[in-house]
Amino acid sequence: MPANPERRQVRVELPGRAYPIEIGRGLLDDGATVAGAVPGRQVLLVSNETVAPHYLARLEAALEGRLTASVVLPDGEAHKRLETTMAVYDQLIDAGFDRGCTVVALGGGVIGDLAGFAAATYQRGVAFVQVPTTLLAMVDSSVGGKTGVNHPRGKNMIGAFHQPRAVIADLAVLDTLPDRELRAGLAEVIKYGLLGDPEFLAWLEADIERLLAREPDALAYAVERSCRNKAAIVVEDEREAGRRALLNLGHTFGHAIEAATGYGPWLHGEAIAAGQCMAAWMSAELGWITPADYERVAALFARAGLPTRPPGIGGAAFRRHMAVDKKARDGQLRLVLLRRPGEAVVTGDYPATALTATLAHFEAHHA
Amino acid sequence: MPANPERRQVRVELPGRAYPIEIGRGLLDDGATVAGAVPGRQVLLVSNETVAPHYLARLEAALEGRLTASVVLPDGEAHKRLETTMAVYDQLIDAGFDRGCTVVALGGGVIGDLAGFAAATYQRGVAFVQVPTTLLAMVDSSVGGKTGVNHPRGKNMIGAFHQPRAVIADLAVLDTLPDRELRAGLAEVIKYGLLGDPEFLAWLEADIERLLAREPDALAYAVERSCRNKAAIVVEDEREAGRRALLNLGHTFGHAIEAATGYGPWLHGEAIAAGQCMAAWMSAELGWITPADYERVAALFARAGLPTRPPGIGGAAFRRHMAVDKKARDGQLRLVLLRRPGEAVVTGDYPATALTATLAHFEAHHA
Repeated sequence: MPANPERRQVRVELPGRAYPIEIGRGLLDDGATVAGAVPGRQVLLVSNETVAPHYLARLEAALEGRLTASVVLPDGEAHKRLETTMAVYDQLIDAGFDRGCTVVALGGGVIGDLAGFAAATYQRGVAFVQVPTTLLAMVDSSVGGKTGVNHPRGKNMIGAFHQPRAVIADLAVLDTLPDRELRAGLAEVIKYGLLGDPEFLAWLEADIERLLAREPDALAYAVERSCRNKAAIVVEDEREAGRRALLNLGHTFGHAIEAATGYGPWLHGEAIAAGQCMAAWMSAELGWITPADYERVAALFARAGLPTRPPGIGGAAFRRHMAVDKKARDGQLRLVLLRRPGEAVVTGDYPATALTATLAHFEAHHA
Repeated sequence: MPANPERRQVRVELPGRAYPIEIGRGLLDDGATVAGAVPGRQVLLVSNETVAPHYLARLEAALEGRLTASVVLPDGEAHKRLETTMAVYDQLIDAGFDRGCTVVALGGGVIGDLAGFAAATYQRGVAFVQVPTTLLAMVDSSVGGKTGVNHPRGKNMIGAFHQPRAVIADLAVLDTLPDRELRAGLAEVIKYGLLGDPEFLAWLEADIERLLAREPDALAYAVERSCRNKAAIVVEDEREAGRRALLNLGHTFGHAIEAATGYGPWLHGEAIAAGQCMAAWMSAELGWITPADYERVAALFARAGLPTRPPGIGGAAFRRHMAVDKKARDGQLRLVLLRRPGEAVVTGDYPATALTATLAHFEAHHA
């Protein structure tokens, strides 16, 4: 039996920029894995006030012999903005780091997106490594190269595509993840089942309680399977010219929830759980899935302890916040909808009344 | 005889992202050229307070039928910073522009770099077109895809590679360019001769006065030849892994001049003119070129009305400002030096005493 039965690797096979996602328990204490994944002599570690006390010193120890510096940012989506990236640039310049340096993100999605954007734009791009510390970041935001910050009027409106050189997902860090954050991560895990992996969806429906109980082998399997799903889509369509937009299932609705509530009260995973339920409801309204399919989708999110309805937001406000979402193209609002549970499509080809009915329904039946 | 004898086109043959540099008199009034060069239905024009009153309305007229918006920024290098890009993002969001929009830069290098960075990072990258209005922007900054803004402690420290879809260089706009700006542009034109085109260097030594007199055919030839030199280097090494660094001849010294004087008193072209003279002096100090070669280089810049020495900056301060320059790699300061007039090399392989002697010489003999 191997020493680390949860140890897995997924490769993101982008031509010329292939990189590994290392998955396993205790990887942060595995100096060889960390040292092998982080290139360069100069390394800036970017973390936040919640995560840094637990893991920053361990990561620094694993990088012994490198020239390291670190910057610890305030925690929360509210700080994912252009002004905060300035603190990262300041630290890179203070440390005298050049184009050969590496930026390492140690944290959840906010830290990964923000540090990744700083890496994408410091001296027109330096190396980047992701060390995700939340389930959501492990299965979604750390993989695929999307980086960015929010504009006061729109989520991720400022950003760049910048692939990491490696992702190190240490499952042991999930032991201390708050339940609410774990559930938020499951919203992205379920998404992979819904959008294109019916077999995984069936496994989730059977085993969601094992994930909520943090059983190591269930978590390892869910992280690996999610990353495989994401890697396959990213390799096919890195810049989101087509198929990659499927990963936005629930996100146009979800981003509107986050924007309308001012980013913060609802976690991203919670917002996109409700968003996926809204997309499923609309798909049923269009007759693409059955009402029973919609109930099946909502039931899984409910079992995962996630919201299945948005907060009370007027239809007009909801629509306004959806319209600045990046899935718009030349003014035509494209949505990810379900053909069946396990198969999503990206389309702008639906009667406008279906969207109106969906917003009206959830305005009347909000959380 | 053709209607527009100055009309030329240079193609930047990047695989999958080839684009034309259109050169000619009166192109801004040529609706077909402008409309053909600018993709998309939504177009944001970015300009500054000096340029906009002259040309913005003409560009808008040439784009009749598109959904256009514009943002007019304050003029000057001091505004090339992250905070100013926010005004561009704001305008893009105000206008409701999506991923299919195009950003057009109408101005000099500051506007081009800043608008290009906004285009590179709005919604992770939208289309971009350059309409340079200075000689310097036509021959250098508008071509090759380097975009970015300054950090308070370093020039162009924040940026991205983002190629334009087209460059429209209307030579008629040079008629109203102040003499000082024209000369600053010549510093980059001379650079192409010095770094790798001895035939062009000889032409410049023969005909520099025709450029200073703004003779249309001389300007058209100099712009075209400069763009051909730059395009060839960019195609060979887009991301500056090697040969492209030759384009930084005079720039490590020049950037230090700009940084030490706080960006503004010295135009970029003036700083890199002095910087090229410093690089030539150091090359002579190393014995790579003769003292007569150095005098020949300095004489050409002097005839172009450009500084051949830096302002009074202490050697320690000069070195400090050079050290944060992006040409550093893992702490080793690489410089572009001359093997002969017409051939430059990028190297970190020189005795440290040569740089010390150069800084000491120009501290004693400053402008």
